[in-house]
Amino acid sequence: MKARFLEVRKKTEKICNPLLTEDYSVQPSDFASPPKWHLAHSTWFWEEFLLTKYAPDYVVYHPDFSYLFNSYYNNVGKRVQRPSRGLMTRPAVAEVYAYRAYVTAAVERFMNNDLNKEILDVIEIGINHEEQHQELLVYDIKYILGTQPTFPTYGNSFLPTAERQDAGFIKIEAGVYEIGHTGDFFCFDNELGRHNVYVADFEIANTLVTNGQYLEFIEHGGYQNFNYWHDEGWAWLNENEIEAPLYWHKMEDQWFEYTLNGMQKIVPDLPVMHISYFEAFAYAQWKGLRLPTEFEWEIASSQLNWGKLWEWTNSAYLAYPNFSKAAGALGEYNGKFMVNQMVLRGASVATPENHSRNTYRNFFSAKMRWQFSGLRLAK
Amino acid sequence: MKARFLEVRKKTEKICNPLLTEDYSVQPSDFASPPKWHLAHSTWFWEEFLLTKYAPDYVVYHPDFSYLFNSYYNNVGKRVQRPSRGLMTRPAVAEVYAYRAYVTAAVERFMNNDLNKEILDVIEIGINHEEQHQELLVYDIKYILGTQPTFPTYGNSFLPTAERQDAGFIKIEAGVYEIGHTGDFFCFDNELGRHNVYVADFEIANTLVTNGQYLEFIEHGGYQNFNYWHDEGWAWLNENEIEAPLYWHKMEDQWFEYTLNGMQKIVPDLPVMHISYFEAFAYAQWKGLRLPTEFEWEIASSQLNWGKLWEWTNSAYLAYPNFSKAAGALGEYNGKFMVNQMVLRGASVATPENHSRNTYRNFFSAKMRWQFSGLRLAK
Amino acid sequence: MKARFLEVRKKTEKICNPLLTEDYSVQPSDFASPPKWHLAHSTWFWEEFLLTKYAPDYVVYHPDFSYLFNSYYNNVGKRVQRPSRGLMTRPAVAEVYAYRAYVTAAVERFMNNDLNKEILDVIEIGINHEEQHQELLVYDIKYILGTQPTFPTYGNSFLPTAERQDAGFIKIEAGVYEIGHTGDFFCFDNELGRHNVYVADFEIANTLVTNGQYLEFIEHGGYQNFNYWHDEGWAWLNENEIEAPLYWHKMEDQWFEYTLNGMQKIVPDLPVMHISYFEAFAYAQWKGLRLPTEFEWEIASSQLNWGKLWEWTNSAYLAYPNFSKAAGALGEYNGKFMVNQMVLRGASVATPENHSRNTYRNFFSAKMRWQFSGLRLAK
Amino acid sequence: MKARFLEVRKKTEKICNPLLTEDYSVQPSDFASPPKWHLAHSTWFWEEFLLTKYAPDYVVYHPDFSYLFNSYYNNVGKRVQRPSRGLMTRPAVAEVYAYRAYVTAAVERFMNNDLNKEILDVIEIGINHEEQHQELLVYDIKYILGTQPTFPTYGNSFLPTAERQDAGFIKIEAGVYEIGHTGDFFCFDNELGRHNVYVADFEIANTLVTNGQYLEFIEHGGYQNFNYWHDEGWAWLNENEIEAPLYWHKMEDQWFEYTLNGMQKIVPDLPVMHISYFEAFAYAQWKGLRLPTEFEWEIASSQLNWGKLWEWTNSAYLAYPNFSKAAGALGEYNGKFMVNQMVLRGASVATPENHSRNTYRNFFSAKMRWQFSGLRLAK
Repeated sequence: MKARFLEVRKKTEKICNPLLTEDYSVQPSDFASPPKWHLAHSTWFWEEFLLTKYAPDYVVYHPDFSYLFNSYYNNVGKRVQRPSRGLMTRPAVAEVYAYRAYVTAAVERFMNNDLNKEILDVIEIGINHEEQHQELLVYDIKYILGTQPTFPTYGNSFLPTAERQDAGFIKIEAGVYEIGHTGDFFCFDNELGRHNVYVADFEIANTLVTNGQYLEFIEHGGYQNFNYWHDEGWAWLNENEIEAPLYWHKMEDQWFEYTLNGMQKIVPDLPVMHISYFEAFAYAQWKGLRLPTEFEWEIASSQLNWGKLWEWTNSAYLAYPNFSKAAGALGEYNGKFMVNQMVLRGASVATPENHSRNTYRNFFSAKMRWQFSGLRLAK
Repeated sequence: MKARFLEVRKKTEKICNPLLTEDYSVQPSDFASPPKWHLAHSTWFWEEFLLTKYAPDYVVYHPDFSYLFNSYYNNVGKRVQRPSRGLMTRPAVAEVYAYRAYVTAAVERFMNNDLNKEILDVIEIGINHEEQHQELLVYDIKYILGTQPTFPTYGNSFLPTAERQDAGFIKIEAGVYEIGHTGDFFCFDNELGRHNVYVADFEIANTLVTNGQYLEFIEHGGYQNFNYWHDEGWAWLNENEIEAPLYWHKMEDQWFEYTLNGMQKIVPDLPVMHISYFEAFAYAQWKGLRLPTEFEWEIASSQLNWGKLWEWTNSAYLAYPNFSKAAGALGEYNGKFMVNQMVLRGASVATPENHSRNTYRNFFSAKMRWQFSGLRLAK
Repeated sequence: MKARFLEVRKKTEKICNPLLTEDYSVQPSDFASPPKWHLAHSTWFWEEFLLTKYAPDYVVYHPDFSYLFNSYYNNVGKRVQRPSRGLMTRPAVAEVYAYRAYVTAAVERFMNNDLNKEILDVIEIGINHEEQHQELLVYDIKYILGTQPTFPTYGNSFLPTAERQDAGFIKIEAGVYEIGHTGDFFCFDNELGRHNVYVADFEIANTLVTNGQYLEFIEHGGYQNFNYWHDEGWAWLNENEIEAPLYWHKMEDQWFEYTLNGMQKIVPDLPVMHISYFEAFAYAQWKGLRLPTEFEWEIASSQLNWGKLWEWTNSAYLAYPNFSKAAGALGEYNGKFMVNQMVLRGASVATPENHSRNTYRNFFSAKMRWQFSGLRLAK
Repeated sequence: MKARFLEVRKKTEKICNPLLTEDYSVQPSDFASPPKWHLAHSTWFWEEFLLTKYAPDYVVYHPDFSYLFNSYYNNVGKRVQRPSRGLMTRPAVAEVYAYRAYVTAAVERFMNNDLNKEILDVIEIGINHEEQHQELLVYDIKYILGTQPTFPTYGNSFLPTAERQDAGFIKIEAGVYEIGHTGDFFCFDNELGRHNVYVADFEIANTLVTNGQYLEFIEHGGYQNFNYWHDEGWAWLNENEIEAPLYWHKMEDQWFEYTLNGMQKIVPDLPVMHISYFEAFAYAQWKGLRLPTEFEWEIASSQLNWGKLWEWTNSAYLAYPNFSKAAGALGEYNGKFMVNQMVLRGASVATPENHSRNTYRNFFSAKMRWQFSGLRLAK
C-alpha cells in the first residue's frame, strides 16, 4: 500500500510537469481550480483526515493551510471560498511542493506502523481522493491552456483514440438485474447498497458517437432547432451563444478543436467530447434515439468497449436504496450533491489506471462540459 | 363534454371573484403569473389549438393576443417574455373577460358539430390544461396577496384540514410492480408507458408531516445545521435567509402563517405546507428517515389518505421508458422540462375535483415552494 | 394660497384621468413609479410634513401608509423599497383617491387657521413637491403606456411644438456674472446662495436640436462610432443595444416615435427628445460643438426661447458655494443626490405652469432618458 | 531624454522586484491589473505609438501582443477584455521581461536619430504614461498582497509620514484666478486651456485629516448615520458592508491597517488613506465643513504642504473651457472619462518623482479607494 501511495503522490506532480509557474495559480472559471490548489488540497486531505487524527507526533505544516485548502467540508471549519482560489498567490508553487514533500514523508513514516482497519480505510480513500483530483487536474489544465488567447500546447497525453467503424447495437433482455458494487475492493459510498432493478428490453450502441456524426447534427441546424432541446438547455445555449462542443472553433469555415496537443482540424473518427448533458440529449433526440439509463449501462457494460470518455446517462444522481453516508466530514463526500446532477458512467483517458470500474457513478450538472464527456446511444 | 367545458370555464372565473381589479395584473416574482394572464392564456389555448385549427369560420378575437398570451410554445412563435407578464396593463381586465366570453361561446358553438377523435382529444387536453391553470391561479393569488405589506384576506377556501393523530407506517413488500397510467380516461403524456419497476421492501407513513412536527425541526436548529442539507440547498437557504416555510412569520417570538383566510397562529395538527424539496429532504435527514420514491408512492397510494398537499418524492422528473412526446406544439407540454426537477405525487386542496389520479406526475425545481407542497416520510 | 393648493391637488388627479385602473399600479422599471404611488405619496407628504406636525387634532388616515408611501426619507423610518412599488395591489386605486380626498379636506380645514411663516413654508414646499410629482407622473405614464406591446394612446397633451427654422447662435461676452436664485418667491435649496461665476466669451444656439438634425447623426453612424462617446456611454449603448432615442422604433426602414398621442412618423422640425446625457454629448462631439454649462445657460436664458424640454448641460450636479441643506427630513430633498448626476436647465411641456424659472436645477444621471429631455448646442 | 527614458524603464521593473512570479499574474478585482500586464502594456505603448509608427525597420516583437496588452484604445483594434487580464498565464513573466528588454533597446537605438518635435512629444507622453503605470503598479501590488489571506509584506516603501500637529486653516481672498497649466514643460491635455475662475473667500486646512481624527468619526457612528452620506454612498456602504477605510481590520476590538510593510496598529498621526469620495464627503459633513473645489486647491497649493496622498476635491471631472482632445488613439487618453468621476489633486508617496505638479487632474469614480487617497478640509 505504501508503494501505491507514493506512486499516486508522484503521479499528481507528474501531471503538472509541463506547466509554467504562471499556469499553476489561475482560475478561469468558478468550476475550475488552479493546479496549485489541487496540489495543496490533495495534500491537506492527508493532513486533515489521516495525520492530525492518527499520527500522535505529527506537527501541522502551516496553521493557515486548512483554511486555504479545504474544498467543501463544512464540518472542518471556515475556508477560502471557491471563486477566490485563483487569487491566492501565496503560498508560492515552490512552497506548495515543499508542503507536499513534508506531508508525503510524514505519511510514509506513519505507514511503517501497524495500522488498523479504520486507518487503512482512510488511506484507501485518500488514495482514491487524490486520483480523482488527478483527473480534475487534467480537466483544469486543459481549460486553463485552452482559454489562453495563444492556445499553448501541453503535450501528447490524455488523447482519446478513434472509434471502431463497425458500429452496431447490443441487445439486452428484460429482467431484474443486480446493480451496485460488490466485492472486497474499494468503492465510494454512493455505489454501495447492491439492489435489484427491473429493466425492459433495450439496445445499446457498442461505440461512442463520433465527431463526424456530431458534425452532421451541427450542420443540420441542431443548435438552432429548439425541438431537440430541454427548455433549460435551450436557454443555456442562447445565453452562452453555444454552437458546438467546448474547444471547437470555426475558422475560415473549417472546424478546429483545441486538444492538449494543440489546435487541430476535427478528426471525424474520434469520439465527440466536451459536450454537456443538454447536448448529448439533443443529439439523441435528433437521431430519434435516447441515452441509456445508468442501470442499462451497468448491465451492458461487460459487452461494451468503454473507458475513453465519461458517458452521459439519462439518470439523475440520486441515492441508491439503503444509501447511508459516512460519519463526520467524509460524509460530505457524495451525499450532499445528490440533486440537480446527472450520472455519467464509464471512465476517460484522464482517469487514473485502476481507478475505473463499471459501478462507478460520476456526476455533473447538465450544463458542464469541461470534463472529458461523450455520449453513447440506446433505444 | 360541453357541460364539463362550460363548468371549467366558469370555475376559472369563480376563483378570481374575490380579487380587486388591481390584483389581476401584478407579478411579484418571475415564477408567478398575473391572474389576468392566466385568464387570457387559458383562453388563448382554446383559440390556438382548437378554434383556429378546426373551426373553419372562426375569427380571431385580436391579432396581438397570441403574442401576448402564449406561455412557452416556441413552435407557435414569438411571445412576451415571462418576467414581463406583470407589466401588461392592456388589455384591461374587463377586456380579458370579454375575450373569454367570446372564445367560450365560439367553442360552445363549435361543439355542436360532430367531432372526431382528434378534436375530442384536443378538447380534453384543453379542459385539463385549464384545470392546471386553476391550481396555478390559486398559488399565484396566494402569493400576490401574501406578499402585500397589508396581508389582505382571500376567503375561507383552499385550506387543508388537520391530519389524523394515529400516525403510523404501512409496510409494502418487495417485488416487480407496474407503474404508469392505464385505462381509458385522460392522462398526460408523461404518465404513459406503463412499465415494470422493482422495489425493495419499504414502509411509508400514512399521514403527512404536520406543522407541529416541523416546528420541532426548526426549534432544534434544523435550518442552522448544514449536515441535513444538500450543498445546493444550503447555499439557497443562506442566500435567501430562509428560516421557515414560505408564509411563516415570527412575530414577538410566536410563529404565524399567512393563509388565504388571513394571518393566523400556527396550528400544530395541520400538515406543513409551502416547503421546498430541500426542506423536505432536510427534515427527513434530521428524522433519520427519507422521502419515498414516486414508484413507492404510486404502489402504496391505494392505502394512503392523500389529496391535501402535493408530496415531494425522492424521484427526479425523467421520461418513463418508451415516453414519446406529442407531435407539434403540444409536444412541448411536458418533455422539455425533464431535467433538474423533482416529482411530486398526490394532489392538493387547490387541485380541481376529478383532476387528480394516483399516476399524476407533478414536478417543480427543488427550491420552489409557492405551490401547495408537503411531505410524507418513508423508510 | 388655499386656492393654489386645491388647484394643484385637482391637477394631479386630472393627469391620471385617461388611465384605466390597471395602468395605475404597474412599475415597468425601477426608475419609474406607478401612478397610484404618486397619488398616494404626494398625499402622504402633506400628512407627514404638515398635518401630523402642525394640526393638533389630525387623525392619520391609515397607520400603514407612511410605510407604504414614503419615498426616500430615511429620517421618517422604514419604507417599501423602490423596486417593489409596482407590486402593491392594495390599497386599491379607489382607496387612494379616498385617502387623497381625506387629506385634501384636512389641509383645507387647517388652512383656515392663522398660519405662521414656518407652516406657510411647508405648504409652499408641499405645493412645489406635488408639482414635481405631476411632471414625474407624465414621464411614468408615458413610460407605462409606451412600453406596452400594444402602444395605447393617452391623448393630445404634453406634446412639444416645432422649433423655429432660423436657427442661429447668440453671443455672450466674458465676465463675472451672478448665478442663483434671488427674489422673494419660492425656490429649492439647491438654487440658493447667489454667487459670482466667471465665464469666458461663448455662443449658444437659440433653438433646440431637432429630430431632423438628430436623424442625420444616426444616419451618419453616430451610434456606431466610439469616438463621439464617453467610455461609460459607449458601454451603456452596447449593453442596452441602443441605436436611437427612447421611444423611437424603426419599422420597415422608417423611423417612428411613440408619443402620448400614439405612434407617429418622425416629424423633422420637432425638437429631439428622450435622449440621455451620453447621447446629447455624442451629438455635440459629432457636430464639433459642445453643450453649454449650467452657468452659461442661466446667463443667456433671457435671450433664449426655452420651456419645451429640459436641456442637458455640461455641468455636474454639485452644491453651490454656501449651500446648506434644510434641517430634518426635508434636508434629504436635494443634497444627498449631489454626486454622479448631470444638471438639466429649462423646463418641459410636462412642467406645471408657474413651476419653472431660469435658476431651476433639475438633475438626472447620465443614462436616464425617460424624462422630457432635449439638447441645445454651444461653442 | 534618453537617460530619463532608460531610468523610467528601470524604475518600473524595480517596483516589481519584491514580487514572486505568482504575484505577477493575478487580478483580484476588475479595477486592478496584474503587474505582468502593466509591464507588458507600458511596453506595448512604446511599440504601438512610437516604434511601429516612426522607426522604419522596427520588427514587432510578437504579433499577438497588441491584442493582449492594449488597455482601452478602441482605435487600435480588438483587445483582451479588462476582467480577463488575470487569466493570461502566457506569455510568462520571463517572456514579458524579454519583451521589455527588446523594446527598450529598440527605443534606445531609435533615440540616437535626430528626432522632430512630433516624435519627441510621443516620447514625452510615453515616459509620462509609464510613470502613471508605476503608480498604478503600487496600488495593484498593495491590493494583491493586501487581499491575500496571509497578508504578506512588500517592504519599507511608499509609506506616508505623519502630519504636523499644529493644524490650521489658510485664508484665501475672493477674486478671479487663472487655472490650468502654463509653461513649457509637459502636462496632459486635460490641464490645458488656462482660464479664469472666480472663487469666493475660502479657508483651507494646511494638513490632511489623520487616522486619529478619522477614528473619531468611526467611533461616533459615522458609518451608521445616513445623514452624512450621499444617497448613492449610503447604498454603496450598505451593499458592501463597509465600516472603515480599505485595509482597516478590527481584531479583538483594536483597529489595524494593512500597509506595504505588513499589518500594523493604526498610527493616529498618519494621514488617513484609502478612502472613497463618499467617505471623504461624509467625514466633512460630520465635521460641519466641506471639501475644497479643485480650483480652490490649485489657488491655495503654493501655501499647502502636499504630496503624501491624492486629495479628493468636490469637483466633478469635466472638460476645461476650450478643451480639445488629441487626434487619433491618444485622444482617448482623458476626454472619454469625463463623466461620473471626481477630481483628486496633489500627488501621493507612490507618485514618481518629477511627475507631480499643482495643475495635475487625477480622477476616480466616487467609490474607488484602492488608490492612495486622503482628504483635506475647507470652509
